[in-house]
Order: sequence, then structure tokens, then C-alpha cells
Amino acid sequence: MGLKKRYNDICNLPSGQKNLITDVPGVLVGHVTIDDSSQKTGVTAILPQPDNLFQQKLVAATHVINGFGKSAGLVQIDELGTLESPIILTNTFAVGTAITANIKYMLSHNTDIGNSTGTINSVVLECNDGVINNIRNLVITEDHVSEAIKKASEDFEEGAVGAGRGMSCYDLKGGIGSASRVISIDGKDYTIGVLVLANHGFLDVLNIYGTPIGKMLSEDKAIKPIEKGSIITIIATDIPFDSRQLKRLAKRSSVGITRSGSFIGNGSGEITVAFSTANRVSHYENEQIEQIFRVSENHMDEYFRAVVSAVDESVLSVLVHAETVIDRNGTPHLSLLDSIKQFQVKHNDEEVEKMLERLGIGI
Amino acid sequence: MGLKKRYNDICNLPSGQKNLITDVPGVLVGHVTIDDSSQKTGVTAILPQPDNLFQQKLVAATHVINGFGKSAGLVQIDELGTLESPIILTNTFAVGTAITANIKYMLSHNTDIGNSTGTINSVVLECNDGVINNIRNLVITEDHVSEAIKKASEDFEEGAVGAGRGMSCYDLKGGIGSASRVISIDGKDYTIGVLVLANHGFLDVLNIYGTPIGKMLSEDKAIKPIEKGSIITIIATDIPFDSRQLKRLAKRSSVGITRSGSFIGNGSGEITVAFSTANRVSHYENEQIEQIFRVSENHMDEYFRAVVSAVDESVLSVLVHAETVIDRNGTPHLSLLDSIKQFQVKHNDEEVEKMLERLGIGI
Amino acid sequence: MGLKKRYNDICNLPSGQKNLITDVPGVLVGHVTIDDSSQKTGVTAILPQPDNLFQQKLVAATHVINGFGKSAGLVQIDELGTLESPIILTNTFAVGTAITANIKYMLSHNTDIGNSTGTINSVVLECNDGVINNIRNLVITEDHVSEAIKKASEDFEEGAVGAGRGMSCYDLKGGIGSASRVISIDGKDYTIGVLVLANHGFLDVLNIYGTPIGKMLSEDKAIKPIEKGSIITIIATDIPFDSRQLKRLAKRSSVGITRSGSFIGNGSGEITVAFSTANRVSHYENEQIEQIFRVSENHMDEYFRAVVSAVDESVLSVLVHAETVIDRNGTPHLSLLDSIKQFQVKHNDEEVEKMLERLGIGI
Amino acid sequence: MGLKKRYNDICNLPSGQKNLITDVPGVLVGHVTIDDSSQKTGVTAILPQPDNLFQQKLVAATHVINGFGKSAGLVQIDELGTLESPIILTNTFAVGTAITANIKYMLSHNTDIGNSTGTINSVVLECNDGVINNIRNLVITEDHVSEAIKKASEDFEEGAVGAGRGMSCYDLKGGIGSASRVISIDGKDYTIGVLVLANHGFLDVLNIYGTPIGKMLSEDKAIKPIEKGSIITIIATDIPFDSRQLKRLAKRSSVGITRSGSFIGNGSGEITVAFSTANRVSHYENEQIEQIFRVSENHMDEYFRAVVSAVDESVLSVLVHAETVIDRNGTPHLSLLDSIKQFQVKHNDEEVEKMLERLGIGI
Repeated sequence: MGLKKRYNDICNLPSGQKNLITDVPGVLVGHVTIDDSSQKTGVTAILPQPDNLFQQKLVAATHVINGFGKSAGLVQIDELGTLESPIILTNTFAVGTAITANIKYMLSHNTDIGNSTGTINSVVLECNDGVINNIRNLVITEDHVSEAIKKASEDFEEGAVGAGRGMSCYDLKGGIGSASRVISIDGKDYTIGVLVLANHGFLDVLNIYGTPIGKMLSEDKAIKPIEKGSIITIIATDIPFDSRQLKRLAKRSSVGITRSGSFIGNGSGEITVAFSTANRVSHYENEQIEQIFRVSENHMDEYFRAVVSAVDESVLSVLVHAETVIDRNGTPHLSLLDSIKQFQVKHNDEEVEKMLERLGIGI
Repeated sequence: MGLKKRYNDICNLPSGQKNLITDVPGVLVGHVTIDDSSQKTGVTAILPQPDNLFQQKLVAATHVINGFGKSAGLVQIDELGTLESPIILTNTFAVGTAITANIKYMLSHNTDIGNSTGTINSVVLECNDGVINNIRNLVITEDHVSEAIKKASEDFEEGAVGAGRGMSCYDLKGGIGSASRVISIDGKDYTIGVLVLANHGFLDVLNIYGTPIGKMLSEDKAIKPIEKGSIITIIATDIPFDSRQLKRLAKRSSVGITRSGSFIGNGSGEITVAFSTANRVSHYENEQIEQIFRVSENHMDEYFRAVVSAVDESVLSVLVHAETVIDRNGTPHLSLLDSIKQFQVKHNDEEVEKMLERLGIGI
Repeated sequence: MGLKKRYNDICNLPSGQKNLITDVPGVLVGHVTIDDSSQKTGVTAILPQPDNLFQQKLVAATHVINGFGKSAGLVQIDELGTLESPIILTNTFAVGTAITANIKYMLSHNTDIGNSTGTINSVVLECNDGVINNIRNLVITEDHVSEAIKKASEDFEEGAVGAGRGMSCYDLKGGIGSASRVISIDGKDYTIGVLVLANHGFLDVLNIYGTPIGKMLSEDKAIKPIEKGSIITIIATDIPFDSRQLKRLAKRSSVGITRSGSFIGNGSGEITVAFSTANRVSHYENEQIEQIFRVSENHMDEYFRAVVSAVDESVLSVLVHAETVIDRNGTPHLSLLDSIKQFQVKHNDEEVEKMLERLGIGI
Repeated sequence: MGLKKRYNDICNLPSGQKNLITDVPGVLVGHVTIDDSSQKTGVTAILPQPDNLFQQKLVAATHVINGFGKSAGLVQIDELGTLESPIILTNTFAVGTAITANIKYMLSHNTDIGNSTGTINSVVLECNDGVINNIRNLVITEDHVSEAIKKASEDFEEGAVGAGRGMSCYDLKGGIGSASRVISIDGKDYTIGVLVLANHGFLDVLNIYGTPIGKMLSEDKAIKPIEKGSIITIIATDIPFDSRQLKRLAKRSSVGITRSGSFIGNGSGEITVAFSTANRVSHYENEQIEQIFRVSENHMDEYFRAVVSAVDESVLSVLVHAETVIDRNGTPHLSLLDSIKQFQVKHNDEEVEKMLERLGIGI
């Protein structure tokens, strides 16, 4: 479940039922989490639709906010405007394994690929969890990836799970967060869903709903700034955008990401993939000219505000849901809530109390 | 003079002496302001350096945050990484006139252009001031542009002046704002200066230093949201960046722009040009290989934070400096300060008082 | 009339009736040519459709092959994927004047622009005719531009006319060329039309249908290579491409341009604009979701080959149609045909004869 | 050894000693070729420099001509302008394996990566060899990749070897080709080297030095057009270009690729990576401002022509060197030379004889 309360938001739209990306019909998410003495990592799979993505591709777009990253599969989405595989999130050194596992998954469902027709574009995005996880060990296997795909469902956890197990965000414990917004168009409800893998930011720039909580917590010197960031954003929707429009949507993710204080740091690989589940593109299209639906550009602001709001909230949801994790050196990497607890023991600050109330949580 | 106080900032760097873009040595700014019964518009010229820009070009880059705009001269900057003319800011329908006037200015100083050598890339950026100004009248002349270039100096006004005369920002009076940050590198001081022409944003999303002042003021219903925005950002520096690095800097302007609440709206043409005054590029270079200085990528975060901070502050400086202007229909287009005055008469709100204090101003 | 014969072509598609861009229904082209003692320049206007382009915009895209150029209006086409004004071609220093004239033309037909609604994106593309024309004189007026728009019709001349008057191509006389290809889709005929303003290339690299005619002619030393190039390509079609697909089409123009030997030189500003006359985009669209037609990606190769073929032939058509023009210094700037005549007087070369035959012309 | 003769070329520059990419000092190439009953595939590794690339990165750039491809590692090169790993070429489904093997290679030489410092950007480019190779079997292992890196040397084979084993080019046998050009700058010799993995093109569009050999051979109906293309181009040089200039160089590869008749088909993933071995970028740079060398833009045409010439020749070198290979169905996939032999038995065509002579080969 995403966050339950919102404060001073940029859009007045309601959340979907779960306030998760899976509020978009057909979108499924699965995690495999690895946590032993030195390995704290995992895989998160996003199944954009439950049916055959290769046969019936989705309209999609990417946006690279800052390209200090190793994600794969973006070039073809940009060229053709389509997505034809699950989206795998994992750590930087597991990208290769995830590409291969994702290809094998698609091959197992499509005997034509690489035989009577072309190949498949396997989409894998990553952050570096090397601060917490012993990333050099390369523990992610193809089976982990297959399992994450298999486990994909409408319900999934947020926080220090799946690909998010070893991530850190604003120097606090990072990971997976999600949110959704429901928009009524011509009397019908549509959904924009967001999922982030958040591993970006410095503590001292973190503010939540206007409270400079990062400066408060860092004066406590409990946590040092380390810059090995990145944030991956996935935007899903059932609104019939074309790929150019999805790219415009994806660009607005940066506004949501930086709302809590980050500034697109040099080392922060910030990459967004957006897809629409409307207007499936048939691999074996025979008709030369087809009829499709498309959103009018005149109403984009409402969609943009929904994206900014859902991305911002997804990042906050990461911080609220991620638990403290013991890092590869045996040191606890504190969650936001545990950090605040330590802080409040000393300071019992009233502004912090109000901030927690706005987040809809107690500590 | 830019703003005098800063609050809860993303960087701890001091401002330059004037807290203006002209703190970067050699950068000059000139305004021509037109204000009669129905015309409220103007021209702002930025002279990147006082000497011959065509003979000794500057390293430069552009970034289109949102391309709903009509600015000219960007294509060549992107290709060659150089700037060879003054930068003219004006209203949307004066772009043609400004291009021509800028060309003539360059021709008058270079008898070789278009004769024994190639042509000149005239850079003109614009916002649509049609809400306040009767833009259909096309009152800007080539003489206005020449005069703005001629008047360029280290000291210049901010607010509803020059190209900013008819602009509106967050539905309040917009216009020109500027700020600067000083960075010590290897014991020597360098400056990053910013100037914005701000004409973007909805009132209800405006927040200043965490205070949701837009929502407060708009509950007063004094101002209705109209979406015909845009913001132009100019970044100047004497740090020796190459054009790729300047593009990375330019991208961070969006973080500064959205800090006060905006979200890169559909109709908001948001375009940034960045240039460095180091490493001049000679038009008649004879040497095939030359030696230049370049910043190491490892220190970019400090520069990025300086850009975010200076752009954010430039937008606030617009709001603080722009006076109320009577629009083309005879209605006052209220400044931030006049709006707050009206609000405080009724509400005498304590949070608003604190916000003003943080801005370093009284009303 | 475009060229009448084709040789060893990349596609087997027939030309349209005129073998001109105006074979695409509704596309009109008009020239104003200026030729006096030192001025050899002009304006060419392309009216993409005869009705109100602002009210009913066209889907469009741009592609910058090499950005050493000063064309205007590209940024908004890239962002919104639409074209809402005539396309004006002229010399580099007339861009400003053409922008303004084009705005005024649109204002005169739309009382809402800049008043009750936003502004207009005026699209102007240019080449530098300064080798032949005294470009520093800035003789093009707004009236010339208006006249070119007014004169736009289905029939238009190719060669050293309109914006092409002062251009040179492969060091021979350049200018305007055009061609078209007809494609049958689901039993209905569609057209891809191309118009180029060709001002690019060195003589020594020119080959026509495999004949290294440039090397032949340049051994004659009659003409020296001067590098101040550029080529503008306009692609029009009534096939319902979306803007992403049009961008892919536009990219293939480079293949057509370089077929005759050029190599995208450093100083050659090579920019392409493509538009489709299907799927008009209403400025005052009320429906949030609309139904449109779109081409399936699976058949793109046929369209790509048509573009390559038509662009290649347009360049050859420039060379065949452009007459010798006396340049600003009183020296004749020789046409291809006059150059060949001089060459054949001496050499009477058989391969050259065959080449002329393949071009469908005699000298 | 690259081709020995050149004909009617766009530049007059000599080739390097081997006419291979390894003429650029320090560049090494290694192949692993797999050929059994159904597997015809392999790996080609390019070591840009023999020393530690992570510690001392190279300046680099990429250009996507057509993005129907699955290459990895491009995003970071675009952002940071640096290359820090070997470049691996292989088949589409081996990209994941190659990424992982390349990471492990870099980890084995750098104990700091993923431990005390960040991660590594592993660059892998691919073509789909599924027409000839049973690509669904995924036979490439990490060991194959390591071996290719280990075998890298100044001398390497061209043709149906390494990653090129299963590729087809213009429906003839494709694979690896290479060429180089030597340029004298200020009295010192520099080299531009090119290597292509060619898997693109239709037979009927192939022309060699003006001879429409494709049409000749395809009239023979020996070979049917199948469209599952792609061509990868690597440009290496010791000239001190910056990354913007390398991107401009990389763009010119398309001119070389299409010289022999191809047209950037829809399904042809055409991607270029260019790097310079000058101006190494230290990973642990301490100096904030460093002094580097850079080429003046005024001389770019000569470099562009060298790239076009070397890329064109590399493609021809593929066709000349690649031998006939039995495909996954047991059918011979004919080389250019074997196709011509069959053709000449019947036709004994004089123009074909001349073409072979120009290529410097007999059959």
C-alpha cells in the first residue's frame, strides 16, 4: 500500500485503490529479495500487461534525466516507441544476467522470436546498491529474475524489498515506492501509476512537506553523505498517449523526484520509462493503416501534475516503508523512521511531529 | 541588486558582489522598456563579453526543458558548442526583429561576415507577454534592440523591466530576475551567474521557502490561472566548462525553476542557454590542435548546486522586484508584494510575515 | 516539372503527375526572386495546406543532420509534433524578416492569436547565399515574403528561383529542386513529395548515377571549392504518419542528400522538416481522447526508400534546372549544364553523354 | 589486412600500415568464433587501449543512426563523454552475457570498483545473426567473451569471424571489416581507424564503385531479401577530439555505410561508437581544472571525409573477406566472391571484371 495521506499537493486527484502502480489495470509487480550476511540486493519485475507483450506491444517512451547509469533496452524504445518485454529492476552488476533471463522468459513464450521473426528488446534498469550490498559478488542469478517475473501480482510490498533491498535514498534506507492517481476523462476513470527504485540524494538536502528534516537529522552526524546514487522511475497508464506524449510525461518525473530536495546530482543515474496499456501494437500487423485513440495535447497539464504528484509521493513512500538494513560491513543503514526516532529522543521537535502527521504515520 | 538573504539553501556558497549575472566578469545586461496605454513590453540584451564575440566565440550549450517556444539560434549552439552573438530576450512576436537587429549589430562590427567569411548565428529567446501586453501590435523595433545592446552594463534593474515588462509569473507580476554564486577553485574565485525571464507558473502551486503562499493568495480569488507561460534561463560563468558540461549545467536549471512550485507545464516554453567566458574559440583559428582548460567531472555536484540555488533565487528575485503593472485592458496585474499586502490586511498571517522576513523584505 | 527519367533507383515507385512536392494534395509553393546587379536572392514559401493551419495543425517533425544553420521554429515542432504556419525558405540574414512576415500573415487570418489564445510558431529555414548574393545588404522585405505566400500554387519553377536564386550546389549553380513518389496502400494512392533548397557540396565529390562528373569538371579547374554550404529538405505526404514516424522519415533524407557524393560537411547546415496532411490537430480541441489513423511500422522500408529516392532526385533536379547566374562580383556562376558544355567542347566524353541521357536531358 | 586498393574515393589520405583499426596506436582486436552444425556466431572484443581504462578513461561519443537495436552502455557515454571498458561485439542474445563478462574482466583488474568507488559501464554492441545462426540456443558464454578480450592483438582477421561469423550483409555473407586513414597534422601523423560489424542491407541495392552488382546478382535469384539487419561501427583515433566532436564524427559514419547502396532500413539497428585515445580522463582526478588538447573545428571536413572513406571501405572489406558459411539449415550463405563466381560462369560480364579489379581482387 502506498502512502495514505497527502499534503499540500500539486494535484487534487484521488489515488487508486491501492495507491500503487498496479492500480493501472493489468500491471503486475514481483520481488525477489536477497539478504544474507554480505548480500543485500534483489530483483523487481514489472509486468506491464499479463498477456503476450511481444505479440501485442505497448506504446512507450524513455527519458534520461541524468545518464550516469547502465540501464539497457532504452535505444529501441526511443526509436520504435514500443515496449515488448517485462521491465526488470536490479543492481548495476546484475543487468547482464537480467537481460538474459528476460530474453529466455520471452523465448519460452514465443517460439518465433529469433527463428522465423526478429529478436526481442529486453528492458533492464538499475541502481548501484554497492554502499549496502557487496555488489562485486554478483549473486543475482537468472532464476532470481524468472522468479520475480513469476511472482508478479497486483499486490506487492514497498520499501527495502526486491531491487530496493540494498538501495539508499537521501542517505537513509531507500528502495521501492509507488503511488497512483485516478483521472476522469469523458466520464471514464483512467489511472496513472508510478513505481520508483530510489537510491539517490544527500541527507542534508532532504525536506518533506517543507520541513528541512535532512538538515535536522544530519546535524546529528549519524550519517555521512556518500554519492553513488540513481533513481529509476516507471510510469504506467491506461490513458492512450502516443510515444511523444509519454516522453513529455516522463520528463515531468524529474519535477517529482526533486520535490523532496534532490538536485539531479552528477553521479545520480536518473532514468524514466513510461508506457501506456492502450493502443496495443501488433507484431504481425498486416494492415498498413490502422485506427487508434490518442489524447489531445490541450489537457496535458492535468496529466503532468498527476505524474509530478505520484512520483514525489513514491519517493516519500520509499522512505516511509524502507526498514533499517544491516549493510555489508555489519553497520545498520538507518531508515527514515529509525533516524527520526533517534532524533526525537533528544529533540522532541514539534515540527517533526507535524511532518509525521502529514505523512500519516507515527513512530 | 539580487535578493539579499537566503534561506535553507541547497548550497552554502556566497553570492557575488551584486548577486547578479554581471558578477561574472565581462557580462553586461541592458534593458529597453516600453510602457504606454496598451503596450507593456521590451527588450533585454545580454552581452556575454564586451569584445568581439564573432572573432572570439564563447563555449556554450542549450537545453530545452519544454519546447513550447519560439526561441532562435539554438540549433547551431548545439552543433558547434559556441556562442557568437549577444543574447536578446524579448516577446514572442519580436523574435524576427531582434534576430535582424542583432545580425546588423554584428555586421557593423565585422566587415568580413557574409562577405569573405560565413554568416552569424543570432540568438534570441522569448516569452509570450500577451496576457498583459498587446502583443499583436508588434511595437518592438530594431532600434529598441540596438539600444538595449548599447545600454548593456554591469548594473541593471530586475523586475518588470526590459523584456520582463509584460511577463507574469505564478499569475503575479513576472519579469527579470538574477543571482550569482562564487566558487573557490584551487584558491581562485570563479562565478556562476544566472538571469531569468520568468513568465511561467500557476498561482495555486507557488510556495516560497515552504510557505504555500500561492494557495493562500488564490483562496482570495484575486487572480485567475491563465496558462501562457515560459521561462528563459541564461547561465554565465568564467569556469572553463566544455559544451557537454555546460549542457549538464543547463539541465539543472529545471530543478531551480520548479523549486518554487511550478511543474514544467504543457504551455510553458522553458529553455536555457549556458556559456563560459573561458577558452575563447577563435573564428580564424589556424592551429589544428590547441591547448585549453577544462573542469574535471568529479566536482560537478558543487557547480550543479550553485546553478539550482541561483536559478531558484532568480525566480524569487523576479517576484520580489516586479512591481504591479496595468495590463492591456487597464486592469492592474498585481505584484507579489501588493498581493500579499491585500492578503495581510484581511488575514495578518504570521507564516506570511516569517516568509517575508526570510526573503529579506518588508511590505 | 521535376526530372523525367530515373536510373538505377532505390525504389520502383512512380512519380506523381508533376514529379513535384505539390503532387501531395493541397501543398502549394510560391517564389519571389530578386536579381539585380549585386542581389541574387529570394523567398520560397511552402503552404502545407490551403486552409487555416493554426486552427487545424499538421502533424510534423524535424531532423537536424548538421546544425551549422540558423533555421527557426524547429523547437516547437519537436516538442508538440505539429506545424501551424507556412514554411518560408530564404537566405540566412532574411530569417528575422521572414519570421515577422509569416507571423503577420497568420495574425491577419486569426484574430484570436496573441489575444484570446496563445501565439504562433513561425517556421523559417535558410541557406547562406553569400557566395553569389550580397547578403550583407538585407534586401528581403516582409512584402517579399507575403508575396511568396500569396503566389503559392501547385505549379512552380525549379532551379535558380525564389530562395534558390543565389545558392550554389557542388560548386555549380544550386537552388530549388523537387520530386515525388506515389505509393499504393490498401488500394488507395498516397504521395510523398520532397522539395530541397540545395546549397551544399564540393565539386570534386559530385557523382551522378555513378559518373564521377565532379572530378571530371574540376580537373578543368574552372571552379574552386568554397565551403559555405547547407541544404534544407521539406518532406510532405498525405500518408497518416505520427510525428515519431515522420522524424524517422526525415532522418532518411541524409541518405538521399549524400547519394550524389556529398558527406555532410562541417559548414553544411542540413535540416529537414517533414509533415503529414492527414490527422489534422485542432487548436481548440475539446475532446480529450480522439480517434486517428496511423501507419503500421512494419511497412516503413517502402516509405524510407521513397524518401531517399525523391530527395536524391530533388538534388539532381536542382542541378539540371538551375541556370548560370552572374554572381555579386560580376562573374558567372556556372550551371551544371553550362559546365558540361564547356567540358564537352574539349573532351567530348562518352560517359558524360550517357550520364546526360540517363538524366533525360541534352545540352 | 584491409583492402589494398581504393577507387574514386572521397579523401586522398593514405591508409595506415595494416589498413585496420589497430593502426591507431594501442587499439587491439580479438575474436572468438563459434562454428558447429547449427551455431555460427562469436565474439569480437575491441580493447581501446592496453592499460587500465577505468583508471584512465577515454573521451568518447555514440550516435544512434537507427535505434532498432539492443546495444548496451550508450547512455553513460552520452552523458559523461567517456569510455571505461573494452567494447564487446556479439549477437543480440549474448548481450547480457557479454555485459557480465566485461564487468568481471574490469573487476579483476580493479579491486576498488563496486567497493570503495562506483561501478563500471560495460559497453556491448550487437547485431542479430539469427538468419544464419541458431540464436535461440544462446551458446555464447562468459568464457568466450573473456577469451576474445585476452586474444586481442594488433593483428586480426576480417570477414566471417568473431561476432561476424553469422552475420549477413546485402544478403551476402557479412561480418567484420576494417580500414584506416592517416592524417598529417602540424607535421605529425595521426590515424582514424574504423571497424564495422556489418549485417545490413538488401542485395538489390548493393553497388560497388558505381557497379549495380546487387541488381546483377539478384536477377540471378540465387538469394532472397530478408530484412533483419544492423551495422555497428567503431571509430578509433589518436586525434584529440572532445566528445562533441567525436559525436559529429560518428554521425558521418552513416554516409560511409550508405555509400554502397543501403538506406538505413527500418529493421537495421545502426549504432556508432567513437573514441579518442588522447586526453585520458583520470577516474581519481584531484585537480579541479586541467589542461587538455583539442582539435580546432575549422579543420573538421578533412576528418569527416576520412571517416566516410574508412567506413565505406570497411563495409566493402567485409564483403571481400567474408567466406561462404553454411547456415543453421544447412544451406550455404554465399559470399560476394562466390556469388560473383556463379554469376560470371553464366555472364562473364566485363563491368564485373572491372569492379573486381578496382577492389584489388580476382576470383
